[in-house]
Amino acid sequence: MSELAALSARLRAFAAARKWEPFHTPKNLAMALAGEAGEVLAELQWLSDAEIAEGLADGELKQRLADEAADVFLYLMQLADASGIDLLAAAHAKMDRNEVRFPV
Amino acid sequence: MSELAALSARLRAFAAARKWEPFHTPKNLAMALAGEAGEVLAELQWLSDAEIAEGLADGELKQRLADEAADVFLYLMQLADASGIDLLAAAHAKMDRNEVRFPV
Amino acid sequence: MSELAALSARLRAFAAARKWEPFHTPKNLAMALAGEAGEVLAELQWLSDAEIAEGLADGELKQRLADEAADVFLYLMQLADASGIDLLAAAHAKMDRNEVRFPV
Amino acid sequence: MSELAALSARLRAFAAARKWEPFHTPKNLAMALAGEAGEVLAELQWLSDAEIAEGLADGELKQRLADEAADVFLYLMQLADASGIDLLAAAHAKMDRNEVRFPV
Repeated sequence: MSELAALSARLRAFAAARKWEPFHTPKNLAMALAGEAGEVLAELQWLSDAEIAEGLADGELKQRLADEAADVFLYLMQLADASGIDLLAAAHAKMDRNEVRFPV
Repeated sequence: MSELAALSARLRAFAAARKWEPFHTPKNLAMALAGEAGEVLAELQWLSDAEIAEGLADGELKQRLADEAADVFLYLMQLADASGIDLLAAAHAKMDRNEVRFPV
Repeated sequence: MSELAALSARLRAFAAARKWEPFHTPKNLAMALAGEAGEVLAELQWLSDAEIAEGLADGELKQRLADEAADVFLYLMQLADASGIDLLAAAHAKMDRNEVRFPV
Repeated sequence: MSELAALSARLRAFAAARKWEPFHTPKNLAMALAGEAGEVLAELQWLSDAEIAEGLADGELKQRLADEAADVFLYLMQLADASGIDLLAAAHAKMDRNEVRFPV
């Protein structure tokens, strides 16, 4: 099983065991996704690029940012799953179009 | 190469060929990520759950939502890359904690 | 009538004339609000602070940013209205708490 | 002084007294705005419309939502101020255009 399919399966089992599926509509998951993207912003909003580079090297900011990025990823995977979207295929299809749209 | 590493490599080559790396700071990428999460919301905001289910079955809404979800994914991968974050490891680490935090 | 009450009244009449009230649930309006906040981000995400200052002075960026900020404001007013929230009172109450929380 | 001008003045004095102006660039304030819009989403994302109506009537959800909406408002006012935007004029100008764009 691919690494994305395995993560999706883990998320599906987690939600099923807690009977959370009724809450996991595309609409609710899209809201959760955007809420977590907002938490990513909150980690970086008052810092300069130099302070961010330093904080990432120190490790503490990197850990917090990794946690928030993980939350975005987990909701994105669940949104894709609830909507019947193959996220990896969609990403490569978008890159195919971007390569045409933005020639070197 | 794993599917996520391959996508990251494609994104890195794409940005390098266009000399876009200077723009791809963690701060700017976090803004782009949240902006794309907002576009996911915009696809769903005026629809009921029933209308979303119908739209996903029809295929047109599914295509638009897949495009927006792909954009979120692409910026998330680039944010992780620019910040030295292993997104898959961070996601599983978060799930490990969630399993403790929310017992069945 | 105060300027905020007048804007709220204009928004209410606009939605009523188009029979849009059924769509204007707090949930949908919160999604629209966050989507428009994402469009504010999109105007600024690839620009440095110096480029933003220049763009605001030139007027073109300022016009686009004003449009997006207006959209955020309009959905925020409608969310407050649909939720029975007095936005101005809530803002001053928050400032009262902030003055205690962050002493000079 | 109008109610919006008075709130702007309060925000400006608050930031000045704490020497926070250097952090209040349009870019940083846009991030903070979108982050707070994400917190509005987080209050509503797992609730049905009926549960939201009930929570707003009970008062507790209304208080939390008012707090988050206030945060969005405060950052929106500060973004407008830092960018030289007259938010009320921009909102009415947008409504003028919307009335043409969406005829009754």
